[in-house]
Amino acid sequence: MADQYARTGEGRRATGIPVIRWEEPPEGPVLVLLDQTRLPAEEVERVCTDAPALVEAIRSLAVRGAPLLGVAGAYGVALAAARGFDVDEAADALVGARPTAVNLAVGVRRALDAHRAALAGGGGLREAAQAALAAARAMHREDIDASARMAEHGLALLDELLPGGGHRVLTHCNSGALVSGGEGTAFAVALAAHRAGRLRRLWVDETRPLLQGARLTAYEAARHGMAYTLLTDSAAGSLFAAGEVDAVLIGADRIAADGSVANKVGSYPLAVLARYHHVPFVVVAPGTTVDAQTPDGASIEVEQRPGYEVTEIPVPQVPVTGAGGGVPVAPLGTQAYNPAFDVTPPKLVTAIVTEEGAVSPVTAEALAELCGGSRRPALD
Amino acid sequence: MADQYARTGEGRRATGIPVIRWEEPPEGPVLVLLDQTRLPAEEVERVCTDAPALVEAIRSLAVRGAPLLGVAGAYGVALAAARGFDVDEAADALVGARPTAVNLAVGVRRALDAHRAALAGGGGLREAAQAALAAARAMHREDIDASARMAEHGLALLDELLPGGGHRVLTHCNSGALVSGGEGTAFAVALAAHRAGRLRRLWVDETRPLLQGARLTAYEAARHGMAYTLLTDSAAGSLFAAGEVDAVLIGADRIAADGSVANKVGSYPLAVLARYHHVPFVVVAPGTTVDAQTPDGASIEVEQRPGYEVTEIPVPQVPVTGAGGGVPVAPLGTQAYNPAFDVTPPKLVTAIVTEEGAVSPVTAEALAELCGGSRRPALD
Repeated sequence: MADQYARTGEGRRATGIPVIRWEEPPEGPVLVLLDQTRLPAEEVERVCTDAPALVEAIRSLAVRGAPLLGVAGAYGVALAAARGFDVDEAADALVGARPTAVNLAVGVRRALDAHRAALAGGGGLREAAQAALAAARAMHREDIDASARMAEHGLALLDELLPGGGHRVLTHCNSGALVSGGEGTAFAVALAAHRAGRLRRLWVDETRPLLQGARLTAYEAARHGMAYTLLTDSAAGSLFAAGEVDAVLIGADRIAADGSVANKVGSYPLAVLARYHHVPFVVVAPGTTVDAQTPDGASIEVEQRPGYEVTEIPVPQVPVTGAGGGVPVAPLGTQAYNPAFDVTPPKLVTAIVTEEGAVSPVTAEALAELCGGSRRPALD
Repeated sequence: MADQYARTGEGRRATGIPVIRWEEPPEGPVLVLLDQTRLPAEEVERVCTDAPALVEAIRSLAVRGAPLLGVAGAYGVALAAARGFDVDEAADALVGARPTAVNLAVGVRRALDAHRAALAGGGGLREAAQAALAAARAMHREDIDASARMAEHGLALLDELLPGGGHRVLTHCNSGALVSGGEGTAFAVALAAHRAGRLRRLWVDETRPLLQGARLTAYEAARHGMAYTLLTDSAAGSLFAAGEVDAVLIGADRIAADGSVANKVGSYPLAVLARYHHVPFVVVAPGTTVDAQTPDGASIEVEQRPGYEVTEIPVPQVPVTGAGGGVPVAPLGTQAYNPAFDVTPPKLVTAIVTEEGAVSPVTAEALAELCGGSRRPALD
């Protein structure tokens, strides 16, 4: 039954992007992941039979994206428990796979707590394993549910902002099913518009340096049969100037208490362009992204990533490579400025959408009120 | 003597980026080009012994950049004449190598006219060939001179706009010696600031999709020992937000009579960011770039380039390639929006600098007055 549930529950979506699922074949339970490093060229699944295999998948970015890492981490603990491995050891290894990924730690903790509570309550190892799996599944369901609600609130907002319909939406980076147990955040809103017949065009920023737009968002848009067009990040300016963008929809890595939005580098220039052209700039993210401990944008520390992401192009097919494993495109020794994300101040954000609804205009008070009512599925 | 002149005249610059030079070894005259397709990995020269070799170099973008193409075209005619080939046939082939490159046609025409005038004046083929070469050399010298004057006017303007000194300049695409017989346009200004000890940092946009910034501007900056840092185009927003950009310097493909500037795609978003952050946005281009026949920005037709420039990454080392000869990074069948350049309206341009001086604010009247006094070296 559990197997059946996994196949038809978490695993089933209209267009079936098989991002993560739990299976229970006769040989024992496994966690099946879509290997995101092979996209868009190939759809290859990785079958993890133990936590170390999942750790390797997390480390190599075969599975990535904050909410999805939470779900994967919880399943990882459940997998160790179901297979009779040391659960604490597995939990430590999973959290250590990407130490800065808060959601990963939260997911691991949740399944681990369920496991311990079952043992403390007098249950055996089998019951404890089932409790860990139940916790992972609950997290997965909550993530699917949160995506669906963000999509609903986001589409309602879009319809309100753009009463004419026929939305032409610009997005940046990847914020769809590949980062989430569900259909994602900003991308889920565009997908809802597509399903409602109101998406005229999804403009997809390629998103240098790692090309998540070209590789992943374009893949998801193609899988869903959406009308999408890829562009270099700096060609967005031409689209705004030509009046071809009705709204910008992006996700968020973190939202400060004042509504400052940290997201993939390149989001802030879009916010400035959107303001200059009087185009709505909408951020879609789960309530758990709003961090009350971070008062404002200046308090957000921006991670600087290795310069080789800019100075080299990763091409797995090429044996002759530079320091970062890619083909050098800049002179050897070139320094690069490579911030992972940028920060958009609340005055440039038209609205923030979470699973609880939308705030617009974006103020610290409105945001606190919205998130006070949030169920915070990943943190309970 | 001619050979000596070429080696120590056009060919000599302080840091010696050997972009183009005429040589007369005992085997007969040749045109030597730096093969820009091999940069920055290798500095390889191409020796052209006849016009077809130069045509191939132009077609393959081994030599590129509007002013440089004009100089190359004139030398190509001189080469055909000096080697006793059919000059008219060579001229046609050269112009046809890149039919939309106006400067190329202008350069070819100038050397051809000199050749014909010498013949019409009663000279022999030898005198006519010398006349063609003299015309090519004059064009080359004028280009060097125009670069030097743009650099001088541009630096004076920069010093005036930024009285504090220690300029941190952001540039886009490539506008240095690799596009010019001289040291270029916007890049030449940054280089002048560097030589004067007043360039604190040159921020180099990588310039997707063709990476002219990463490949060519970074190469030139490294050759000159400038303090430069490479960044993805959309990371420029973070620099502006952090107050790390004192001025933007870019070149121009065409300037309309009203001061609208067509330049490499990605220039317009920089202009919007610069305005939002109160940073000067300065355009540097020879007077010949100002086109009185184009009244305004809306009259500039923007070339759409093939989508594969965005959906594939060109990697010469890789044998398995997509339709455009590169490694696909987006799903097969992905459409791309790939305008070659964008148009910045005059209200976002702080100043336009030509070899005749600077106009600021940019108005149709001021621009017409400046260009009325221009010697228009490439068009006389």
